[in-house]
Amino acid sequence: MCGIVGLTGHSPVNQAIYEALTVVQHRGQDAAGIMTCEDDRFFLRKSNGLVRDVFQQEHMLRLRGNMGIGHCRYPTAGSSSSSEAQPLYTNSPYGIALAHNGNLTNASELRDLLYREDLRHLNTESDSEILLNVFAHELQRIGKLKLSVEDVFQAVSAVHHRCRGGYASVALINGYGLVAFRDPWGIRPLVFGSRETEHGKEYMVASESVALDVLGFKMIRDVAPGEGIIIDQSGELHTRQCAESPSANPCLFEFVYFARPDSIIDDVSVYKARLRMGDTLAEKVVREWGEHDIDVVVPIPDTSRTAALQVAFQLGVKYREGFMKNRYIGRTFIMPGQKQRKKSVRQKLNAIDLEFRGKNVLLIDDSIVRGTTSRQIIQMARDAGARKVYFASAAPPVRYPNVYGIDMPAAEELIAHQRDTQAICELIGADKLVYQDLPDLIEAVHQGNSRIKGFDTSVFDGQYVTGDVDDAYLAQLAQERSDAAKQGKYAEYRGIIDLHNAS
Amino acid sequence: MCGIVGLTGHSPVNQAIYEALTVVQHRGQDAAGIMTCEDDRFFLRKSNGLVRDVFQQEHMLRLRGNMGIGHCRYPTAGSSSSSEAQPLYTNSPYGIALAHNGNLTNASELRDLLYREDLRHLNTESDSEILLNVFAHELQRIGKLKLSVEDVFQAVSAVHHRCRGGYASVALINGYGLVAFRDPWGIRPLVFGSRETEHGKEYMVASESVALDVLGFKMIRDVAPGEGIIIDQSGELHTRQCAESPSANPCLFEFVYFARPDSIIDDVSVYKARLRMGDTLAEKVVREWGEHDIDVVVPIPDTSRTAALQVAFQLGVKYREGFMKNRYIGRTFIMPGQKQRKKSVRQKLNAIDLEFRGKNVLLIDDSIVRGTTSRQIIQMARDAGARKVYFASAAPPVRYPNVYGIDMPAAEELIAHQRDTQAICELIGADKLVYQDLPDLIEAVHQGNSRIKGFDTSVFDGQYVTGDVDDAYLAQLAQERSDAAKQGKYAEYRGIIDLHNAS
Amino acid sequence: MCGIVGLTGHSPVNQAIYEALTVVQHRGQDAAGIMTCEDDRFFLRKSNGLVRDVFQQEHMLRLRGNMGIGHCRYPTAGSSSSSEAQPLYTNSPYGIALAHNGNLTNASELRDLLYREDLRHLNTESDSEILLNVFAHELQRIGKLKLSVEDVFQAVSAVHHRCRGGYASVALINGYGLVAFRDPWGIRPLVFGSRETEHGKEYMVASESVALDVLGFKMIRDVAPGEGIIIDQSGELHTRQCAESPSANPCLFEFVYFARPDSIIDDVSVYKARLRMGDTLAEKVVREWGEHDIDVVVPIPDTSRTAALQVAFQLGVKYREGFMKNRYIGRTFIMPGQKQRKKSVRQKLNAIDLEFRGKNVLLIDDSIVRGTTSRQIIQMARDAGARKVYFASAAPPVRYPNVYGIDMPAAEELIAHQRDTQAICELIGADKLVYQDLPDLIEAVHQGNSRIKGFDTSVFDGQYVTGDVDDAYLAQLAQERSDAAKQGKYAEYRGIIDLHNAS
Amino acid sequence: MCGIVGLTGHSPVNQAIYEALTVVQHRGQDAAGIMTCEDDRFFLRKSNGLVRDVFQQEHMLRLRGNMGIGHCRYPTAGSSSSSEAQPLYTNSPYGIALAHNGNLTNASELRDLLYREDLRHLNTESDSEILLNVFAHELQRIGKLKLSVEDVFQAVSAVHHRCRGGYASVALINGYGLVAFRDPWGIRPLVFGSRETEHGKEYMVASESVALDVLGFKMIRDVAPGEGIIIDQSGELHTRQCAESPSANPCLFEFVYFARPDSIIDDVSVYKARLRMGDTLAEKVVREWGEHDIDVVVPIPDTSRTAALQVAFQLGVKYREGFMKNRYIGRTFIMPGQKQRKKSVRQKLNAIDLEFRGKNVLLIDDSIVRGTTSRQIIQMARDAGARKVYFASAAPPVRYPNVYGIDMPAAEELIAHQRDTQAICELIGADKLVYQDLPDLIEAVHQGNSRIKGFDTSVFDGQYVTGDVDDAYLAQLAQERSDAAKQGKYAEYRGIIDLHNAS
Repeated sequence: MCGIVGLTGHSPVNQAIYEALTVVQHRGQDAAGIMTCEDDRFFLRKSNGLVRDVFQQEHMLRLRGNMGIGHCRYPTAGSSSSSEAQPLYTNSPYGIALAHNGNLTNASELRDLLYREDLRHLNTESDSEILLNVFAHELQRIGKLKLSVEDVFQAVSAVHHRCRGGYASVALINGYGLVAFRDPWGIRPLVFGSRETEHGKEYMVASESVALDVLGFKMIRDVAPGEGIIIDQSGELHTRQCAESPSANPCLFEFVYFARPDSIIDDVSVYKARLRMGDTLAEKVVREWGEHDIDVVVPIPDTSRTAALQVAFQLGVKYREGFMKNRYIGRTFIMPGQKQRKKSVRQKLNAIDLEFRGKNVLLIDDSIVRGTTSRQIIQMARDAGARKVYFASAAPPVRYPNVYGIDMPAAEELIAHQRDTQAICELIGADKLVYQDLPDLIEAVHQGNSRIKGFDTSVFDGQYVTGDVDDAYLAQLAQERSDAAKQGKYAEYRGIIDLHNAS
Repeated sequence: MCGIVGLTGHSPVNQAIYEALTVVQHRGQDAAGIMTCEDDRFFLRKSNGLVRDVFQQEHMLRLRGNMGIGHCRYPTAGSSSSSEAQPLYTNSPYGIALAHNGNLTNASELRDLLYREDLRHLNTESDSEILLNVFAHELQRIGKLKLSVEDVFQAVSAVHHRCRGGYASVALINGYGLVAFRDPWGIRPLVFGSRETEHGKEYMVASESVALDVLGFKMIRDVAPGEGIIIDQSGELHTRQCAESPSANPCLFEFVYFARPDSIIDDVSVYKARLRMGDTLAEKVVREWGEHDIDVVVPIPDTSRTAALQVAFQLGVKYREGFMKNRYIGRTFIMPGQKQRKKSVRQKLNAIDLEFRGKNVLLIDDSIVRGTTSRQIIQMARDAGARKVYFASAAPPVRYPNVYGIDMPAAEELIAHQRDTQAICELIGADKLVYQDLPDLIEAVHQGNSRIKGFDTSVFDGQYVTGDVDDAYLAQLAQERSDAAKQGKYAEYRGIIDLHNAS
Repeated sequence: MCGIVGLTGHSPVNQAIYEALTVVQHRGQDAAGIMTCEDDRFFLRKSNGLVRDVFQQEHMLRLRGNMGIGHCRYPTAGSSSSSEAQPLYTNSPYGIALAHNGNLTNASELRDLLYREDLRHLNTESDSEILLNVFAHELQRIGKLKLSVEDVFQAVSAVHHRCRGGYASVALINGYGLVAFRDPWGIRPLVFGSRETEHGKEYMVASESVALDVLGFKMIRDVAPGEGIIIDQSGELHTRQCAESPSANPCLFEFVYFARPDSIIDDVSVYKARLRMGDTLAEKVVREWGEHDIDVVVPIPDTSRTAALQVAFQLGVKYREGFMKNRYIGRTFIMPGQKQRKKSVRQKLNAIDLEFRGKNVLLIDDSIVRGTTSRQIIQMARDAGARKVYFASAAPPVRYPNVYGIDMPAAEELIAHQRDTQAICELIGADKLVYQDLPDLIEAVHQGNSRIKGFDTSVFDGQYVTGDVDDAYLAQLAQERSDAAKQGKYAEYRGIIDLHNAS
Repeated sequence: MCGIVGLTGHSPVNQAIYEALTVVQHRGQDAAGIMTCEDDRFFLRKSNGLVRDVFQQEHMLRLRGNMGIGHCRYPTAGSSSSSEAQPLYTNSPYGIALAHNGNLTNASELRDLLYREDLRHLNTESDSEILLNVFAHELQRIGKLKLSVEDVFQAVSAVHHRCRGGYASVALINGYGLVAFRDPWGIRPLVFGSRETEHGKEYMVASESVALDVLGFKMIRDVAPGEGIIIDQSGELHTRQCAESPSANPCLFEFVYFARPDSIIDDVSVYKARLRMGDTLAEKVVREWGEHDIDVVVPIPDTSRTAALQVAFQLGVKYREGFMKNRYIGRTFIMPGQKQRKKSVRQKLNAIDLEFRGKNVLLIDDSIVRGTTSRQIIQMARDAGARKVYFASAAPPVRYPNVYGIDMPAAEELIAHQRDTQAICELIGADKLVYQDLPDLIEAVHQGNSRIKGFDTSVFDGQYVTGDVDDAYLAQLAQERSDAAKQGKYAEYRGIIDLHNAS
């Protein structure tokens, strides 16, 4: 997963993009980059690391200009899609820079065509480079020295025509302006807003509305699925629906886990949605377990706190923060002659014994993916003296891989893959386990905005909205991830210093 | 404030000290250091920065040995006492390294004597360097090639005789072992524990018990006020009361704000103490405001959550996390021609509007120091649509400077200095304000361990337990801080690369 | 000025290119870069600094592949042409990387056309980026997926058709091979050679033959003016004259100062040429001064030693190295409150007094540019006790700017600009001054290879072989350099981290 | 070997010490350090690397004060004596910093006493730390708060009494001033001088006079063997003979190889001494070879040029610089799966063929140590076409290890160890070989200053002037070096970040 930001102002935008990146950095802490534009020059700084480590005074001084885009990247093991830092750049035509959140499902086909037909070289495994070059090629086909609004929207339409998957994007076209577009399925979020300054209106596009809030921008609305947005060099805003049959299918996992609770995605408050997930989860507990003997509800920090609070409220039992999160996790160094130790959950969480001792505890987590962490946490609760340890997941069982930009393990590594709740309960060592039902989860989000007709529910039910993900695709994906893992390709690529990686 | 750690094992201790430092790093994120000992060599790495940034693989490889100490430092503006990274070292006698949490109140007198009588050079403003050299000088007076347990405890006694203030310390004596001691007033916390390994018992000393927990050590007990502890090179533990009339006076602010909730200090669970602070604060609210119209209780994250939960419970109103903390705060760069902008609370917190809109909100914070942050937060609540904004502080008014190691502003900068609650309420812009009463706060902690007879309550009532802090001292302190601030001494010293600063 | 290297082998070429760069680094110590190619990926490392500082183990590990190019850059103050590190890259078409030594005289016209007609964005002031994009565009016009040898030579011909100036270049075309070409005037040097390995023949192209020598390659010959050279992916060599009316006009300054003495350029030994310069310079001394009273000949290290030795021999006086060069020049730091001191020649050279005291000394330098250094050195000789200080320049008066890649000051800053020898002699404070005559200098080089018909003598006589340099051009150039200097553009751009700058 | 500098001024000395270090950096390119003093604070920066790499603007800003010392270190493989960067510091008594050039021959005895009797901890293998602590202990014995000139000279006398070996030293005593002293045998060089400024006289002490020259100081004289020098805080100079029976025994190798030719050591011009070495070497050639058939004399750059010029002059044959030195030597990277290649002389030197082809060449080098380089160079001359290759060494056969600070291999690794000239000639592959005779070498230096009665000639004849070096000592030394080499101790220590290593 990644966070993206685009900004046009009437004074240098470097500091504002930097701050916006810190606000969306929960979407990706692996790498960060900013590209700005002044006169006909681009300025770039990107590197692996946290925003605060990547950008120093010397870099900020060079990021000149009143227009720019930013990106922060999630570490993606074995995924061929997002291993390089962004924004990316091509000099033909015009000079175009792009940053992107999502994943293309027809990447290998596009990659082939770009080389064979368009003679464009791709120097990374990143599908963002593909997206950039598809967009660039479509602009090149138009072939005008002076692009019109129509031309640019036409290129966005062509991108929609050629690309499948999730792709919320921001781009800079030298001499033209800032362009943003969202895939026609509306899988990945993208919002935009504006603020008034003494010099005129400034616009911002971002993955999440919270970036607008913190920077003092007023949200205008979500970018619609398939929509294109241009803020041209004169500062004028243009919007256009560029897809033929767009439909909103926001990714449910954004609401469950990924997005910040204080964000509004597709007009749905993430925070409220999580409260409702707590309500329905509590109902399920009552429905399934009847008269319960739960003494205390304990969230597994940080994401599940909102839902857990509501579960406790609905069940009428105490809510207690029984796990303390260690905010300063260090590395595990490998000393000569020592074996690599597994990073244990104990380094991340510490149980407050008195909240567990002799009690029946209901642990709430947002979801269960591999299940290894859940098992360790349940054991910690037992070690702290819990009599019984119940477990509830605010999301349904995760059974299928994500192909739209969330880095999830292959199906075989998912604990719920081909297992029922009872089997999972035993594997994680809980006394009882309850999962949210998918219709309840959908309803929890849907209540926030009844105009949304569909959702990307693929990780729960294997229904992929882009319609091009079949068993062969998934098998190929699993193979690639497995190969990448075996060859340590991931480790290697993460550090690679390639042509698109500037210091 | 600082965090300290000492460890003796049967295998290299570098990784364990590193991890322990991440656990106590909430006590100081400004600088970090580790010193280890092998054969007759010390190995050191220290630098400004977070633990995860200070220590790289190359440093860890060099931190050899089965015995070591670690330190993390709080940034202290304008304070002359703790500007340099630790541990510190002197080569005469024996080779001694020391790390320290606290502050000496008779530092200037000791500094003078060390130079005039002991001919010892101090190259920093750090009172830790004073403490190290007092300890070193007392060992040198004994003058033996082979130190006995008696000798070392005698030196600790001499330190207690000469030094006043708060000073929880760990030290390494080359060829001898690990030494730890706590000031006779027991102001700063210090605990120790052990774990069994296949090669024998290993000991750990740390500022907080949570470091023992996470590293798998079993707490033995708090180091008693005035007590000395030795783990000699053979791994044997020796303890001794080294002060003439020790008394426990733990710092109340550790319980209010500084310590992690999952720590046990002087046999008191910090978490439980905070729950009780919530209970008494709720009682005070009821007592003072009678029939209240509070719709929701909202904590100001992170520290006040524990107390706030209990306030809500006792008041019977909803508890909601209305503020989201931005975990990735960046720097503010100063661009040429731009003025420095003030770091606003808005970059750190974001309000979830729906929890405020049209509601009467009771905000809970652990304490109010300068009041500027409180004022901004209250304004954020109003901007989010709150009808009324009430404010409650889990600690009483902070009216006096801290001289035992907590970095607090001079008295004039404290909002409660010479102001009553009503005046403060107006200044911060709350509709109503309530402070915890000091007896209630004391009781909240005291309930956890009735054997504690006294507390360091100085920031609340100006009573300094070491008995040597008079108006002249405080005036001098205020002057130094003011001078340091004016001369930018702080900024300069923080980055200084002096003799005790190794890369 | 710059040094370039290209290499195709049967095993990784990173180390060999690295070593070759150290051998040609006298041509540019300001920045260095290597680009290699493996499968369809390019790998790049470039940065400001010396070769040994730019490349660390981590970079070398990433520079994979059996084919690559390298570049080292001269610092060019106020010159708009070569401020960025190379190699440079464009991804359309094919993926092409290029490194270049020289300067285009019709750069601004090309720049304009590239943007207006080819829609190609240039993100630097470097004319290397222009050259790369002209070459890329010409390949794109051909538009084939599989390039033939004919296609590539046709593109080189088109480059010759469009570009004017000096440009010795090496390029990589992804999926195709290594390409090298030299401008039709043969201004900048370029040689190629081969070596046999157990796996087959390997080829190397370099600015100077000494790089071939040191790496164990056998020189085949100079690349002819206008010639193109291809080593395709199968390792086969193709050469072709790609210019319509090529002619050799090697830059005389390479022989006077720039090239290493152990290089052979256009079949002329630089070392021998310098010996001959000494011969003719001695003749001129005798001719002009008749019976001389010179006691000792002293070279100004390092370049003039070869000529000076011969001057002494021909004059029959002692040759003595009276100036010692300080090999470790440091920086001049600007401390707060201090003024920048001028970097004096005294920090670079130290006189051995006994070689000067009471003697009549003839100082030999390769050339006189601004004259400031000469004046300081003459003063040093006097301070060391010299009775008389004579000065001889192995090159004629430098009166015109260089537009083919050598960074020289604007005409007004040249001491010989509109001054005769007597006036210069007085300005530099010599007792007598003699300059080599231009015909003698030409003859000294020409003797080495009588087939060379012409030379680039522009800095001495203002004759520019490309025929497009007129007063308007020079005025424009002087303006740009002056503007750049005034705006500190140079300082800024040198450190810039732009899109082509990878760490 | 090392270079040292000390400076007292009336304005900040950081820049001047920095520049002086670049001037003496030929004595040690492995590490560099500067310690300055202001008020009662020391400021330090030291690290491995060249002077220009070790000191950045940020370090210079911190090196405050009008008094300081500097050090640059030679890499010493397998030597236990000088592996750590200097200056070093102890805080008891007073605060003392010291930098040192040389080696103590009774280091292990002193080390033992320092710990057992003085209880002083040594954290490095450096004998400079021993020297510092001996000096510190002797000052501590005096035990006064205010030191007098007598006190300090008494401490220097006590150092002379306890230490044996070569040790030219500079030290800072906090609150007192700058102290310099030279061992009673006068083995290592040390000079001092002064310059007048508008604020008063400034003094400088340095390893070589050339540092005084370049910084604009006027040499006063050499520090006499055994002499102590003080420049106290008021800027007053005090000198005193502190040894009982001092005698001058300057190291011959300084004149042969180590010192810069433009230095004056013990009143002898190194340059002139080398010219005389050329004279006597030419005489030996004539004496031994009679009618020779030498066509050309070629020096092996850089050191032997001075002598070679005179050899050519005396023999009446041409002097030609047939080898070009590559000034930019890079590293050899070890790529995965590749074997380490030997660093060949070919990377450092390149032969100009035409000076060798068909000629009888006499190569001149300053000395022959291991002989491996000589052999390679002779082969290069043959490869370049030389008919006969003769070889002459300006120094006699090197047969014994150096124990006074020059890093030389153990006896068994010396090619002349237990071999006669004929055997060596065959080993290095020369047609003829001639060595300077020791009496001639002595005379060449002695002529410069007839008052010098003796020299340290130990590497040639095994006579060690300190009288304490016997076979047992040498056997022990060889053992240590061999052990260190085997254990890779050297590599490890070089990078160590120990207590004395500040960034």
